[in-house]
Amino acid sequence: MDILSDNKCFGGRQLVCRHPSTSTGTDMTFGLFLPPQAEAGAVPVVFYLSGLTCTHENAMVKTGAQRKAAEIGLALVFPDTSPRGDGVADDAAYDLGQGASFYLDATQTPWATHFRMFSYVAEELPALIGAEFPVDGARCGVTGHSMGGHGALTIAMHHPERFRSLSAFSPIVHPSASDWGRKHFIAYLGADESLWAAHDSCRLVRDRGFPGKILIDQGDADQFLDYLKPDDFATACAEAGQEVTLRMQPGYDHSYFFIASFIDDHLEHHAAQLAAV
Amino acid sequence: MDILSDNKCFGGRQLVCRHPSTSTGTDMTFGLFLPPQAEAGAVPVVFYLSGLTCTHENAMVKTGAQRKAAEIGLALVFPDTSPRGDGVADDAAYDLGQGASFYLDATQTPWATHFRMFSYVAEELPALIGAEFPVDGARCGVTGHSMGGHGALTIAMHHPERFRSLSAFSPIVHPSASDWGRKHFIAYLGADESLWAAHDSCRLVRDRGFPGKILIDQGDADQFLDYLKPDDFATACAEAGQEVTLRMQPGYDHSYFFIASFIDDHLEHHAAQLAAV
Repeated sequence: MDILSDNKCFGGRQLVCRHPSTSTGTDMTFGLFLPPQAEAGAVPVVFYLSGLTCTHENAMVKTGAQRKAAEIGLALVFPDTSPRGDGVADDAAYDLGQGASFYLDATQTPWATHFRMFSYVAEELPALIGAEFPVDGARCGVTGHSMGGHGALTIAMHHPERFRSLSAFSPIVHPSASDWGRKHFIAYLGADESLWAAHDSCRLVRDRGFPGKILIDQGDADQFLDYLKPDDFATACAEAGQEVTLRMQPGYDHSYFFIASFIDDHLEHHAAQLAAV
Repeated sequence: MDILSDNKCFGGRQLVCRHPSTSTGTDMTFGLFLPPQAEAGAVPVVFYLSGLTCTHENAMVKTGAQRKAAEIGLALVFPDTSPRGDGVADDAAYDLGQGASFYLDATQTPWATHFRMFSYVAEELPALIGAEFPVDGARCGVTGHSMGGHGALTIAMHHPERFRSLSAFSPIVHPSASDWGRKHFIAYLGADESLWAAHDSCRLVRDRGFPGKILIDQGDADQFLDYLKPDDFATACAEAGQEVTLRMQPGYDHSYFFIASFIDDHLEHHAAQLAAV
């Protein structure tokens, strides 16, 4: 594994790392913030999954999350949103292919070769982080934004033994019924919609649920509300008896200015949930 | 004036505005954060001047300054670092021309036509902001990073009646003696070094000083220390009797991760100084 950069930040270290991934068969880049408390021992860790078109870098430089993470002693991991490179399949659309994995393991040509981000984020990367850095793999949470909120919800509901705390910002919660989802599931998973349920939060919360509180923030001035469908998830949680706090934040949109405004609350949520593990 | 974007952020508004500038003879773009307190009346304002290669955008999205500004009721202005456009002189070097004004009024060909950032930042933009937005022009401070720290120091020492509070991150303080300065002063002001003194903080602090405390943070692992010369400014302040707090921050470099780590202290410094006006 290569350390591409290492900047002191709020008394801790903001790293960017690159490593060959067995899941994707490509080199993968991620950001890792280690709070000052990591110098004294293993700290809990929160994975932040980014949205369409983002790399590992956007949230790392735009959310301001390191301040609160340094204060309360959380490590933060910022994975990339897909495999990348000349040999990796892509599409001209901004919302398919590189930068747009939807955090699943593709089964269809040409995506199946490298697009295995579900395995990468749920299994390979947590194992790597736990082995290489002073983080406590038993106290691990996940959050994300938009497509990354979808990734956080679906991965945590599949692996609650690994991800003990869960939150999301403006997540895509009902991709089977959304223009942010249907095209992508057809491309990555095929046309058989019965295979989509495993990656649709509105279905997963009924089929599996999450054994803890879920915190979701959603701007009510979000320009993509029709794609995100927060009401569908509220209904599904109510019907499934899932404990969820879905906060509709008045006047906020889909931007990083929205995420920055509420990231502290999410990190506090994760810290509290992980402290109880 | 056009509002290019308007995002809710920490209960306030993060605007990006564009207007025709009489100083530069071009359209100029700036970011403006209005804290929630601005809905009830005029608030104090801090100008943040960015460094080489930056636009209005970098500090606006990378420093995380809005959180503290919203808490304590400060407006923030993020000007661009130079005039821009096809009709504006430029240079192939990253540190001369567009994105690299050094915040002075150029007198030399071809720069003199548009490169009048001293007049723009010191006079035109404060007047515009005061006329168009709920900010209190009598409570106005300035800070900046690197070339922008140079801008903050030099502009405030020339206009202490307008900029009542002053701080800087890793400023270029002795440009007459630095590779970040000499080339640029020759290009913009000409070879007569006697004309450079008005834009050299180590000279200005002896000739004029600033009637208040100056706060400076400087990373001791900054890769550009040889260009920045903080020790020269410490000596000049000591000799001139200038009140300054120059904090050498161990392990920090020249990046936005450094600025983000200490921006809250700077905003608190400005709020305290401006509250005493």
